Amino acid sequence: MYSFASDYLEGAHPDVLKALTETNNRQSLGYGEDEYCAKATQMLKNIVENDNIDVHYLVGGTQTNMLVIAAALRSYQAVITVDSGHINVHETGAVEYTGHKILTRPHVKGKINSSMIADIMSEHRDEHAVQPKMVYISQTTEYGTYYTLKELKDIYTYCKDHDLYLFVDGARLGSALVKDDAPALKDLARYSDVFYIGGTKMGALFGECLVIVNNDLKKDFRYHMKQKGAMLAKGRMLGVQFLTLFSNRLYFRIGEHENKCADILRVGFKECGYNMYVETDTNQLFPILDKKTWAYVSKEYAATFMFNVDEEHICVRFVTSWATSEQTCHDFVRYLHQMS
Amino acid sequence: MYSFASDYLEGAHPDVLKALTETNNRQSLGYGEDEYCAKATQMLKNIVENDNIDVHYLVGGTQTNMLVIAAALRSYQAVITVDSGHINVHETGAVEYTGHKILTRPHVKGKINSSMIADIMSEHRDEHAVQPKMVYISQTTEYGTYYTLKELKDIYTYCKDHDLYLFVDGARLGSALVKDDAPALKDLARYSDVFYIGGTKMGALFGECLVIVNNDLKKDFRYHMKQKGAMLAKGRMLGVQFLTLFSNRLYFRIGEHENKCADILRVGFKECGYNMYVETDTNQLFPILDKKTWAYVSKEYAATFMFNVDEEHICVRFVTSWATSEQTCHDFVRYLHQMS
Amino acid sequence: MYSFASDYLEGAHPDVLKALTETNNRQSLGYGEDEYCAKATQMLKNIVENDNIDVHYLVGGTQTNMLVIAAALRSYQAVITVDSGHINVHETGAVEYTGHKILTRPHVKGKINSSMIADIMSEHRDEHAVQPKMVYISQTTEYGTYYTLKELKDIYTYCKDHDLYLFVDGARLGSALVKDDAPALKDLARYSDVFYIGGTKMGALFGECLVIVNNDLKKDFRYHMKQKGAMLAKGRMLGVQFLTLFSNRLYFRIGEHENKCADILRVGFKECGYNMYVETDTNQLFPILDKKTWAYVSKEYAATFMFNVDEEHICVRFVTSWATSEQTCHDFVRYLHQMS
Amino acid sequence: MYSFASDYLEGAHPDVLKALTETNNRQSLGYGEDEYCAKATQMLKNIVENDNIDVHYLVGGTQTNMLVIAAALRSYQAVITVDSGHINVHETGAVEYTGHKILTRPHVKGKINSSMIADIMSEHRDEHAVQPKMVYISQTTEYGTYYTLKELKDIYTYCKDHDLYLFVDGARLGSALVKDDAPALKDLARYSDVFYIGGTKMGALFGECLVIVNNDLKKDFRYHMKQKGAMLAKGRMLGVQFLTLFSNRLYFRIGEHENKCADILRVGFKECGYNMYVETDTNQLFPILDKKTWAYVSKEYAATFMFNVDEEHICVRFVTSWATSEQTCHDFVRYLHQMS
Repeated sequence: MYSFASDYLEGAHPDVLKALTETNNRQSLGYGEDEYCAKATQMLKNIVENDNIDVHYLVGGTQTNMLVIAAALRSYQAVITVDSGHINVHETGAVEYTGHKILTRPHVKGKINSSMIADIMSEHRDEHAVQPKMVYISQTTEYGTYYTLKELKDIYTYCKDHDLYLFVDGARLGSALVKDDAPALKDLARYSDVFYIGGTKMGALFGECLVIVNNDLKKDFRYHMKQKGAMLAKGRMLGVQFLTLFSNRLYFRIGEHENKCADILRVGFKECGYNMYVETDTNQLFPILDKKTWAYVSKEYAATFMFNVDEEHICVRFVTSWATSEQTCHDFVRYLHQMS
Repeated sequence: MYSFASDYLEGAHPDVLKALTETNNRQSLGYGEDEYCAKATQMLKNIVENDNIDVHYLVGGTQTNMLVIAAALRSYQAVITVDSGHINVHETGAVEYTGHKILTRPHVKGKINSSMIADIMSEHRDEHAVQPKMVYISQTTEYGTYYTLKELKDIYTYCKDHDLYLFVDGARLGSALVKDDAPALKDLARYSDVFYIGGTKMGALFGECLVIVNNDLKKDFRYHMKQKGAMLAKGRMLGVQFLTLFSNRLYFRIGEHENKCADILRVGFKECGYNMYVETDTNQLFPILDKKTWAYVSKEYAATFMFNVDEEHICVRFVTSWATSEQTCHDFVRYLHQMS
Repeated sequence: MYSFASDYLEGAHPDVLKALTETNNRQSLGYGEDEYCAKATQMLKNIVENDNIDVHYLVGGTQTNMLVIAAALRSYQAVITVDSGHINVHETGAVEYTGHKILTRPHVKGKINSSMIADIMSEHRDEHAVQPKMVYISQTTEYGTYYTLKELKDIYTYCKDHDLYLFVDGARLGSALVKDDAPALKDLARYSDVFYIGGTKMGALFGECLVIVNNDLKKDFRYHMKQKGAMLAKGRMLGVQFLTLFSNRLYFRIGEHENKCADILRVGFKECGYNMYVETDTNQLFPILDKKTWAYVSKEYAATFMFNVDEEHICVRFVTSWATSEQTCHDFVRYLHQMS
Repeated sequence: MYSFASDYLEGAHPDVLKALTETNNRQSLGYGEDEYCAKATQMLKNIVENDNIDVHYLVGGTQTNMLVIAAALRSYQAVITVDSGHINVHETGAVEYTGHKILTRPHVKGKINSSMIADIMSEHRDEHAVQPKMVYISQTTEYGTYYTLKELKDIYTYCKDHDLYLFVDGARLGSALVKDDAPALKDLARYSDVFYIGGTKMGALFGECLVIVNNDLKKDFRYHMKQKGAMLAKGRMLGVQFLTLFSNRLYFRIGEHENKCADILRVGFKECGYNMYVETDTNQLFPILDKKTWAYVSKEYAATFMFNVDEEHICVRFVTSWATSEQTCHDFVRYLHQMS
């Protein structure tokens, strides 16, 4: 039995584990004030060609999302996203727990656009309703699509024209970063106010690297971290991991690898005649399977059930990761062919 | 330069790191629903001789404290602790952020007793004031002392008689567990409503093992975890670490080791004529040093400045850990002797 | 210029003001523990034929909504309503500020039904999403419609079968109470868990009378009131007002009067050929007017602009109240006729 | 039986009730956007000789305190006050419910001073503790004393030097305003960042008039009001009441009257040989009575029990108000004399 259910089923990429082991016995300051975090941050500043960013290392995605939103907004301000946004459906109301309303519109292939944002803005004009102040998007999205550089610029321009912050959740950023028409890291540092580079789903044991670009969002951020239980005592472990991921293009190589694996699966599904719920070319696939096929597949492989499409068909999610081997993908395709 | 400043300056105990490495490539379910967490939990149930406990694995101490308190209390309820309680001074208002007042009395050697609690209770009688509902203590305390089994029973009895929960923060529990007159794990599971076994300061890379004893506090706890950003995606890492710490008495052996190291330092300070702010026999020492000694010590060793005692003297904290060697402690004592 | 914009444009019904004046100089206990509140509560218990209710007197609607929801739900629990629900659009995120997500479906003539609730329930099944725990409806709704007794029973039955609380916001309850097929007060006390009898929009200077039916929601409610700034020092003023409204059928007579006034307007709009956005027979009307008519009307009368229907038409809200005279309504109709 | 227990036992001053009655039937805009609020605000601007203030009308004291503090502070910031501060003991954790810690020092005759504030500041220096950002004082204090203009200036100067806001709770402001050495309204508008002029305890049916002086605290305050359930629908009632209180020196005349009444009681207690817990010369008195006297007094008069002084003595609070007559006070003194 092999599982394509998610990209956090194994531990860490071997290089990350090696770095943790090699640095294990050295003493260093706690709470992210160590030399490893400092080095990783400097390396990232070089990559984005911008020294004027604040970088913080956090443990997980929900934690990072709630923290950024809570720190950026005043209590009566709201965040805009698509109905399928991770913060809207998969975080048990973490954002609302910090006091903020989430305003949504139905997603278009997992994405939002400036016209949808404008529509929400038109409904919120005075103190009898919440005040929209931030737009949250994910790169890649919950449906495996990604925003092109042009799309990101469009949204960012709208945000700047309407006094909104743009926050990019990069839990699966690596899979998009390696696309030609997607924003590079330095583009994210130019066309967003705050974004994060996901580690948990990209080869780290755990960890998200938060980049604050907008000066207005920088002040006292460590107070927010500590207060929300998000400041790791042995913060050096986050520094060591991201230092490794940023070195030798490891983060990008992982993105390339998982996309390559996904391509093998994608071709296989096509060859066998299965359609996709949404066409993607990142590490997430959403094939529509008839129930017989799903039963056959489930004998040897795990994937995530998404929803019923109709009486006979379901939408399923397959995800590849740094830990998926190309051979495993070929084996799966061969297995799929054997059914027909 | 060697630092006695804290017990989270290195990575993990070698056995813990080894276990993480060995299990790294296996696939397992996320969010703490894996086999390692399950095994660690069963092992703990055996240790405390009680199958009717709920066990959850969390990342850090502040996170655990705020989560437990927020989950246990209704919005108008308050938690009682000493003025030096970790939640009162070192967590940036994390508990207040979840909406709850902390009610305090001045500590006696880091500890609270039932008479202090009764005094607070007498001041809170109707709906114009908050309603005390929980007592929070730390084992060991912020001043390195510990509650004996008798003291724990006294406080617990008062709590049960007055409809209060008793919550024991065990960030440094190992150092107390190995004391003859201190409560054992099974005592904690009998004379508290909820407690945690600290990992971060006891040899883990990170992690706290929360034990919920009182049935009233168990319902939907995973909803709280997820909502507060405290559910680790790769939860298996917490399971693997605590499985290791619970095996072969490792957790206890670490406690014994760090106490032994602290004893060497303690004897050294005494021999050289230094008094302690509070007499302890755990892994934290609070010597009172004159400024000349502090300058001399600081040339080769780091420790934590606590506060000024008078014009000429300061109180300093030395902490030993799994990573401290006895030799290092002997070296320090010799260095101290050389000054005189 | 006369305004039909809302039902809170004047002070209090003369009987209410008279009662406040007559009792002004008597001393009474504060915070709602006075004899007037006690009498009003006993009168209400007689009306609903149920002594086992808890009654609290609050100042305003948003305050009451946030308080009831915050008191009833645990932090990870959510409240269900229609997209047009008052708590969802007109309260500046008050519910989210208390930490709770609002889950919505598009309204059908302002109303929700059990099938819409079931649809939301099906999407919330584990701790990675919020847990729905309450349904919130308004009687009358934001679009002037009302739930019949049968509809209320259906929703309540669904709620009881699925462990949900049913909360009825009665800010404009009087206008519905006098309808033959609508639930009477004693029905609300049978087929809801908590509801309130609005005063602010029904002839009081201010005030809402909250009725808690479900025992689970009663405990320590006054702590919640005090903590959220919702306990009036001179609580006797709320008691005096509701005592007056409950006496001599005043509350019902006001409902009858405002409906009668609205009927005059309704007939007038029909005679002049205007359609309604939603057909109602309570004190709120939503005529669709062409822009020329709106300009003509606006010269002498105020009403509330709702939204653009198309290039040429808008939806407008007219509201009648205890302070509207039948003559004023006849005058308006005559004025409307004069345009054609 | 006559009660001196508090200053909110009756309704409103006759002039206030008259004004409410006279304006009752006029239509006006809701939510504080009416002409009465506008006029009261302009009158106040003239009194404080400063047009650059924002004025908001709120219903009650706890509501005002929590709102101002929640609006002014970021989540990790704290408010400083004395241990006896109203927000610390009598508001059921309302401030903590909005997420903020209250930092205290023991009061000196109900008051704080800059040295006590400095002491707290010295303990809060980095992100591991909350960040003090506001000082809260009451004029008059919980123990009936008042800050002189000089004392207010001292505290304000310290606040400005240390980036702290100064917030003055004026629930009983009138009793202090009429003292020669106390700050006048225009002084409060110069030496504080935000303050309020209490109505509930000063002759209004209810209501507090909030004055925001510091520009940093003004933005979007109405959003905060609405979100916290503190925006009254018929806001005109607050405008009408404060317009009356500000006219013809009524607010000041009430202050003078209640002080005069208190003086009669004070002289009486002295004549009969009773000491005061704290010497005051405002409308609150704290005599220390032996238990026999308390029993005798309680046969004909009510007052508030504060605490036991020793086995034989208790501290009691007597309060006078606009509704207390001088004759009543003379009667009480005569009654007291009759006991001896």
